[in-house]
Amino acid sequence: METQELTKNKSTQEVANQWAQMCREGKNLDCINELYAENIVSREMPGYPEEIVSGKENVWNKSKKWLDNVEEYHKGEIGDPIVAGNHFTSKMDYDVTFKDSGRMQMKELGVFEVKDGQIVNEQFFYSM
Amino acid sequence: METQELTKNKSTQEVANQWAQMCREGKNLDCINELYAENIVSREMPGYPEEIVSGKENVWNKSKKWLDNVEEYHKGEIGDPIVAGNHFTSKMDYDVTFKDSGRMQMKELGVFEVKDGQIVNEQFFYSM
Repeated sequence: METQELTKNKSTQEVANQWAQMCREGKNLDCINELYAENIVSREMPGYPEEIVSGKENVWNKSKKWLDNVEEYHKGEIGDPIVAGNHFTSKMDYDVTFKDSGRMQMKELGVFEVKDGQIVNEQFFYSM
Repeated sequence: METQELTKNKSTQEVANQWAQMCREGKNLDCINELYAENIVSREMPGYPEEIVSGKENVWNKSKKWLDNVEEYHKGEIGDPIVAGNHFTSKMDYDVTFKDSGRMQMKELGVFEVKDGQIVNEQFFYSM
């Protein structure tokens, strides 16, 4: 309850900082629980699996599936967020071995929209 | 012809740097001519006028209309681009008086996709 009340008052910069910190600490699922709105919409590149996922529980499950598929992290860098109005962006640089598809290097941009102290949209940009 | 050949060989970082430089110099339309692919797709926020515009000529016309509507620039800051793979992003911070709608402060993020040394997608994120 207390977390919920605090979350409501956060600025976009505060949400961005907390998002980056939790991702860097590997607390990706806690991050969704704490910072994401119930009506969050998560977008991947066009044509990718789960291209558009709506709702906090579904986005949480999508992340859980991704994390469960990780065999080993070789690198996972989260760039300092850049805030513009009620959006922020961060560069993500991963080198990961997945259980189902082997080792992959991924460089991507995430763009996040914040409303009332919560993340309501996220969209990821990467090579296809 | 020579420009076209040079453009083909540019890296995402080079395209990003040139994009930023031309925007800072107010050469927005030249920037489209030089760096944009024929099949460019330009996206605004959902529900905004000209939400999705396709094709270099149409995107050029969209920018021309925007620029022609400017009465006075009070501020126009283009942040240093951040590159991730074949995408780059930049924070744009404008303070502009428009002929048709008066003075507006706009903070937005632009995300650009580069393919074969040309910008093939752009998408803008801002408050609604």
